[in-house]
Amino acid sequence: MKADKIPDIIIGRLPVYLRALQRMADSGLKTTSSQELGEHVGISAAQIRKDISQFGDFGKQGTGYSIAYLLDKLREILKVDRIWDVVLVGAGDIGHALANYQGFKNRGFRIVMIFDNDKAKVGHKIGEFMIEDSEKIVEKVKSSGVKVAMLTVPASEAQGVADRLYQAGVKAILNYAPISLTAPNNVRVQYIDPATHLQRMTFYL
Amino acid sequence: MKADKIPDIIIGRLPVYLRALQRMADSGLKTTSSQELGEHVGISAAQIRKDISQFGDFGKQGTGYSIAYLLDKLREILKVDRIWDVVLVGAGDIGHALANYQGFKNRGFRIVMIFDNDKAKVGHKIGEFMIEDSEKIVEKVKSSGVKVAMLTVPASEAQGVADRLYQAGVKAILNYAPISLTAPNNVRVQYIDPATHLQRMTFYL
Repeated sequence: MKADKIPDIIIGRLPVYLRALQRMADSGLKTTSSQELGEHVGISAAQIRKDISQFGDFGKQGTGYSIAYLLDKLREILKVDRIWDVVLVGAGDIGHALANYQGFKNRGFRIVMIFDNDKAKVGHKIGEFMIEDSEKIVEKVKSSGVKVAMLTVPASEAQGVADRLYQAGVKAILNYAPISLTAPNNVRVQYIDPATHLQRMTFYL
Repeated sequence: MKADKIPDIIIGRLPVYLRALQRMADSGLKTTSSQELGEHVGISAAQIRKDISQFGDFGKQGTGYSIAYLLDKLREILKVDRIWDVVLVGAGDIGHALANYQGFKNRGFRIVMIFDNDKAKVGHKIGEFMIEDSEKIVEKVKSSGVKVAMLTVPASEAQGVADRLYQAGVKAILNYAPISLTAPNNVRVQYIDPATHLQRMTFYL
């Protein structure tokens, strides 16, 4: 099956496989099995075999998967075999955490700009980044060609900032504000909302 | 279908519906349709009807769903018609953001304890919470009976802290550390990892 026909639900699992495989590679492993990978990510071996078979025939019965090959293939499919520039809007606690986050390294992303609408923050630095005025989002982001953004502003401001990001050409937004964003059809939005994640687990308690 | 037979993939969407419906209720709406709800959450109307039909027959053709009834039902199914106490481990940037987060209100959760292993932080306050020593996790969490935890410690410490939380009787962990946790069968783990969320979107760019 061609990559562009892979169902979204499978695409959603691939980054999880990628993270687990990277961890295995870091610890010196060369090959793995669907059973072993399944134990790391909490997904059945059968499901993993099915998911991986969507994008080619690799891994032989009995010999397992080459971790390096699977990593290359997953990075290529997810388009993180390159580095995406990311703009961060909101320089609060979560903005600080993201600006200092070590988890983006070697995973396809780097923050290149930080905006906030608080004039008291503009001009100050977070790590190596100078906080810029949110009023300049459209101009700055458009001219830089950045397509990916992270939004860590209060819920009341999130839609307004998102609208500016769409106008600036951003096509993928990771939203930390606890509201659903209205977005054009050609823009993807993912949500990081701790309450939603917790609610998904209490069902089982 | 009984609630305990609902597939996990559907359970994962229910908190998203809950959030969108709550927002509609807050803005004064009384009824909605699968089409309207679908536009808010980016899921097809057909899928929403199918998901909601899993747990009973409500919503009549043509008249739509009662938002209040659907909210009650979803809260009951997800067991957030009560308040869950939550323990937070890690008093860094993300820990601060979570301690001050307004998004838990009326959504079934309240933080009751914060731990950190940094002696310089222990005894200091975040908002109304006194930071306690991570060495006391097992003792304090066990005696309080808390079942839900959020983990915002560095990757290198996450598994060790998780093991203490299992020992203390915690059954659901929301993990912000960028590593996969090994967990007993009776413990649920959800991950908040911005790189994984971003990777899920770059596929489409």
